[in-house]
Amino acid sequence: MQRSFLALLIIVSFLHSAMANPQQAGADPSLFGFSSQHAQTEREWESKFRALPNAQKQRDYMQLLSARPHHVGSPYDKQNAEWILARFKEWGFNAQIESFKVLFPTPKRRLLELVAPTRYVAKLQEPALQEDPTSNQRDEQLPTYNAYSRDGDVTAPLVYVNYGLPEDYERLQRLGVSVQGAIVIARYGNSWRGIKPKVAAEHGAVGCLIYSDPKDDGYFGGDTFPKGPMRPDQGVQRGSVMDFASNYPGDPLTPDRGDPNAPKMTASNAPSITKIPTLPISYGDAQPLLAAISGPLASEEWRGALPIPYHVGPGAAKVHLVVESNWDVKEVHDVIARLPGATEPDEWVVRGNHHDGWVNGAEDPISGQVALLEEARALGELLKQGWKPKRTIIYCAWDGEEPMLLGSTAWAETHGRELQEHAAIYINTDGNGRGFLALEGSHSLEHFMTEVARSITDPESKLSAFERDRLAGIAHAKSEEDRKELRQRPDLRMNALGSGTDYTAFVDHLGIASLNLGYEGEDEGGIYHSIYDDFYWYTHFSDTDFAYGVALSQTVGTAVMRMADADVLPYEFTDLADTMQKYSKDLQKLLQTKQEEAREREQELNEGAFRATLDPRKPTVDPPREDIPPHLNFAPLENTLELLSKSAEHYKAAFSKAQASGFSGGEQQLTALNQKLLESERRLTDPAGLPRRPWYKHLFYAPGVYSGYAPKTMPGIREAIEQRRWQEADGEIARVARVLENEAALVEVTAKELEAIAK
Amino acid sequence: MQRSFLALLIIVSFLHSAMANPQQAGADPSLFGFSSQHAQTEREWESKFRALPNAQKQRDYMQLLSARPHHVGSPYDKQNAEWILARFKEWGFNAQIESFKVLFPTPKRRLLELVAPTRYVAKLQEPALQEDPTSNQRDEQLPTYNAYSRDGDVTAPLVYVNYGLPEDYERLQRLGVSVQGAIVIARYGNSWRGIKPKVAAEHGAVGCLIYSDPKDDGYFGGDTFPKGPMRPDQGVQRGSVMDFASNYPGDPLTPDRGDPNAPKMTASNAPSITKIPTLPISYGDAQPLLAAISGPLASEEWRGALPIPYHVGPGAAKVHLVVESNWDVKEVHDVIARLPGATEPDEWVVRGNHHDGWVNGAEDPISGQVALLEEARALGELLKQGWKPKRTIIYCAWDGEEPMLLGSTAWAETHGRELQEHAAIYINTDGNGRGFLALEGSHSLEHFMTEVARSITDPESKLSAFERDRLAGIAHAKSEEDRKELRQRPDLRMNALGSGTDYTAFVDHLGIASLNLGYEGEDEGGIYHSIYDDFYWYTHFSDTDFAYGVALSQTVGTAVMRMADADVLPYEFTDLADTMQKYSKDLQKLLQTKQEEAREREQELNEGAFRATLDPRKPTVDPPREDIPPHLNFAPLENTLELLSKSAEHYKAAFSKAQASGFSGGEQQLTALNQKLLESERRLTDPAGLPRRPWYKHLFYAPGVYSGYAPKTMPGIREAIEQRRWQEADGEIARVARVLENEAALVEVTAKELEAIAK
Repeated sequence: MQRSFLALLIIVSFLHSAMANPQQAGADPSLFGFSSQHAQTEREWESKFRALPNAQKQRDYMQLLSARPHHVGSPYDKQNAEWILARFKEWGFNAQIESFKVLFPTPKRRLLELVAPTRYVAKLQEPALQEDPTSNQRDEQLPTYNAYSRDGDVTAPLVYVNYGLPEDYERLQRLGVSVQGAIVIARYGNSWRGIKPKVAAEHGAVGCLIYSDPKDDGYFGGDTFPKGPMRPDQGVQRGSVMDFASNYPGDPLTPDRGDPNAPKMTASNAPSITKIPTLPISYGDAQPLLAAISGPLASEEWRGALPIPYHVGPGAAKVHLVVESNWDVKEVHDVIARLPGATEPDEWVVRGNHHDGWVNGAEDPISGQVALLEEARALGELLKQGWKPKRTIIYCAWDGEEPMLLGSTAWAETHGRELQEHAAIYINTDGNGRGFLALEGSHSLEHFMTEVARSITDPESKLSAFERDRLAGIAHAKSEEDRKELRQRPDLRMNALGSGTDYTAFVDHLGIASLNLGYEGEDEGGIYHSIYDDFYWYTHFSDTDFAYGVALSQTVGTAVMRMADADVLPYEFTDLADTMQKYSKDLQKLLQTKQEEAREREQELNEGAFRATLDPRKPTVDPPREDIPPHLNFAPLENTLELLSKSAEHYKAAFSKAQASGFSGGEQQLTALNQKLLESERRLTDPAGLPRRPWYKHLFYAPGVYSGYAPKTMPGIREAIEQRRWQEADGEIARVARVLENEAALVEVTAKELEAIAK
Repeated sequence: MQRSFLALLIIVSFLHSAMANPQQAGADPSLFGFSSQHAQTEREWESKFRALPNAQKQRDYMQLLSARPHHVGSPYDKQNAEWILARFKEWGFNAQIESFKVLFPTPKRRLLELVAPTRYVAKLQEPALQEDPTSNQRDEQLPTYNAYSRDGDVTAPLVYVNYGLPEDYERLQRLGVSVQGAIVIARYGNSWRGIKPKVAAEHGAVGCLIYSDPKDDGYFGGDTFPKGPMRPDQGVQRGSVMDFASNYPGDPLTPDRGDPNAPKMTASNAPSITKIPTLPISYGDAQPLLAAISGPLASEEWRGALPIPYHVGPGAAKVHLVVESNWDVKEVHDVIARLPGATEPDEWVVRGNHHDGWVNGAEDPISGQVALLEEARALGELLKQGWKPKRTIIYCAWDGEEPMLLGSTAWAETHGRELQEHAAIYINTDGNGRGFLALEGSHSLEHFMTEVARSITDPESKLSAFERDRLAGIAHAKSEEDRKELRQRPDLRMNALGSGTDYTAFVDHLGIASLNLGYEGEDEGGIYHSIYDDFYWYTHFSDTDFAYGVALSQTVGTAVMRMADADVLPYEFTDLADTMQKYSKDLQKLLQTKQEEAREREQELNEGAFRATLDPRKPTVDPPREDIPPHLNFAPLENTLELLSKSAEHYKAAFSKAQASGFSGGEQQLTALNQKLLESERRLTDPAGLPRRPWYKHLFYAPGVYSGYAPKTMPGIREAIEQRRWQEADGEIARVARVLENEAALVEVTAKELEAIAK
């Protein structure tokens, strides 16, 4: 291609983007929620802020904070909390440590052996590597285990259950294989790990092994550590298996620390402890076990990357599993640091990342913690230069995230009432990597966060983080429709919040609008929750020059400042309404698909299609007959969504006018308006909570009872459909509609207040 | 479920099938192409026939025919031919051996070694196994090699090219990797093997290794031989890499034996010899080579099941490859056996299966050959009982199929003129297995073959072979549309004929309506073209009781008898017209997709989407800009297809009436009609042949220049579109339309003759 032609193309391309995304052109200095005067001041302070985060400092912090294992209850965990506290204080924050007592089991006895048809004793030990200087700190390392596994000593036949999800058991049923009385071996992945022992126990298994298949994060994905970033053969993923999604996260003994009437539990009756003993293992340990299994061959999607045929069992393979923990109560240390707001101290912007790790935890969580620290240091610098945040900013370094959000949940529950009164937003990170800005959050923040992403320069492409995300979306889109949306919709779509990190209590329990942010997508790795997640690994295989660490500080810090300084809290409701419309459509499609599948299955059973395809050497059982799902009444939801869309459009127009007028109403009027807006996410909750899990109050986002971290949207309706509880589904539709009507009313009222301000 | 309810369901189900498929009810004794009186006689003879094929005899034949290696030129190959000849004679056939001289290279020198960064000398040897009594016949076994690989001695860097298809090289180009001057290593699968060295040479490679990845037929698919049926680590797939699809199959030195003017070739200038030295290897030999490659990681779809990261290269890995053959002329021995027709001796039904193997060849080809032999024996029995076929039946046991259809091509070319005058059908098999009846063939035979499949009882399900296929189609259908068609269309859809077995010269070169049949789909195996394809393997892991061997005899024998005895040749043209409509739609969709993809690519290049997603640690090159494909004129084709559909409907109605009238015209009228009908497949050919490969005369079915065995339908048009030759595509559309117009005219004329008969 000729150079002049190329140059022309670049110009055409630039014009195209500039036209499609007018806010990118740089000419428009407006900021959503700011009068034009305040927007200019804000942009100046933000520019100054973004020049401050420093890569070398992040590197130094990481080296220090990950120098030794720092899990809950370890000396270095406490030492890190105190060091972080000292930094916050040094940077001008009003900081303190808040400590909470929590149940945190640690390994006492672990044994896994194949006892038939041959014998193999599992190593259950990650070896130190010469190249990796912190991998040999065995005395301080937590052994490989799944926290909150029930104690047990069982010997039973072994059955391979793929990822161990409900649909995997349906498949086993078709093969005529039962796990009743068996020990199952499931591979990590495709769900949160705790789902695997939960579902196994529901099907009668007596023990559960979870292994890291090399297909998922081992050699299949590249060279293994220390040559490359992937999991070596004896690497093990530790992790909590607390059944938080069906119950509550945080300390199993205190279902809701903020509620004086909550029942008190013991380790033996706490509902979030697993029902069967569970142990994570390496693929080095898994291979002899899997190779010993006979019985039907696993279907193609079930097979991993070990050089063996994957059989399902049961057969001669029998294993002996012993898991025993010290069921001790330990202390977690949250570091809480405040910058009081100058004019609206009662409106809070909360920002957090945990500091505890499973072992040295350089990537998880220190790569996020160092970004947070550099934000805090930079905000401290701005304070010295005269910047005064309008609202109160609270920086939190959580402890006990790994066992299952112990520190953040305890703090959020303890301060629940204040938070519900004051918190405008909670912004979370939990580690970082290279690549694309991943956005998850409350959809009233979608417009806000898109605008922030337009302000950040991606270190590799030099495009804005927004533009890189948008173009990556186009490049990877699965349909023409998706590409069209990416080309036309001004805002990026944010994913819903599930769980697995510290925003959970904020959004799900308290109804605080939340965000979860991080850069990701360019580096594979297989050191998650192993001793190899350390400084050596991170500085060789991830964001080695901390360029994305700096970008994350810039991104989150900009969001914190903009939220703290806005004249009117920058929530936006047309994106919310649009998203809710989408969810409603998704649910109706889900139901329709289930109906069609059930009809088709019935017809095939009647035709004898399953019998006809049966190979007598590989016998299968017909799938069970199921009732065809009834039609559900989505009308109340659809009607309320119309209402919400209208109010949101009204709000948007009123907001524009009010912003153009410079939000010229008095301070008091704005305070009153913001107080109402603070309510907007709370309105999406119901004090009664979700069916069978009242701790979860948010009716639009929740972790899935059978997916764990992955979000379920409109979970009450969705899970009722998925689990075939039709009456409950109808009831939940009506409840969601009522709650949305309330939300629409709030949006309408605030729209009118904005109109009054604009006059 | 309660028993009475189940019984009801079975009745409902039965009624449903009976209604949907009236011919299945058993009440209708009519046969397409037969008067009702003849239909009854035919059905009686066919029933007698189907009781005759014997499993034990098939087993005995197999044990004998696969007792020793029997490749072209080997003593046992000749001995088998003579033994088969003796059987035909014994059973009352007029049989003889026709021999032809052909170029058949065999290994002289083979060497493969990794010379950097470490050293590994490939074993290139399949070990004998104690369990398997014929695996130790090393003196008679052909070593592992690719026949018709050019000789060569090259040392070069190694590059992994996935399956080695054109799209794989596009991917390499995006990674900035060139194979110029390199030796490539490709995995078997996803195309005929000879495509791999062809495409590699086109991209400048100097050598080609082809290995069997365990993902494709090794341990990924189950236990390996001898514990299970899959390929063991040193098992190798031999096979021809003759470039037949771009040139011609059969002896490379005689481009068309039937054409006295065809040029004579030598081994050094024959166009169908590969351009670069090529060698097949085991995964045992491949693993050290692949593990030594560095450079970019292969994308996920490129990775096989070896326990290593798959890198693309090039890097330090360098290999030394030596391939040298004895370029000898050998003799192939076709056994040709005739049963003369009683009343229409000049109309021929030809049926064949090859007898040569790469080594012991129990599955390939003997499992098909023993079915053929039992058909022949049974027909001989019927003769004794007084059955007289109306038409001449010719049974053929081909030699030299493995090197590339040497025996069948030589015979078909030699007898080309007679065959074009007399042959009503060629029915091929090439081995057999358990499961579902696989149907490939000329679409004027779709109705005929569906009717045959309704007459055969599947040994496992006891359904008709038709019904089992139909229900399996429903069970595995990918879309509601496909299921609907399977539930409503009375005939099964047949796949088009590609190549890779002995029907090629008949259909592609001579234009004789052909079928290729076999049972398959229930057994995996990894012994294809290895020393382990033998009696031990077959009788442990495939159709161990020869139940499907018997079913295949019944299926093909029924087709042979019915075709030989019909009053009017049972071609049917609405299925043909329907299929051609479908092909035309497919081509238009292909063009449209290419246009959309090109437009999208251009837009993404303009937007900078590829640059935006670039990870600087994994650099990629933008895809090249391509012109957007122009619109093509499909109107002539669409118009002619309307014409063909109308004529076909006319023919169908006239045929029905004539059949109802008992085909009451005189013998002479019927003979004249059948002579015209014999032309119907020939009319789909053009003497000029396909662009750049004139040997291929059929304009509707051909092997793909870049797919090999897999068929290309309307290949002149399709490959012009795929290879972006737009002007040629427009020309080919017009040519196909002209040929179809001719076909429609023939159908119209014969319809009128049928109407005359019916009066």
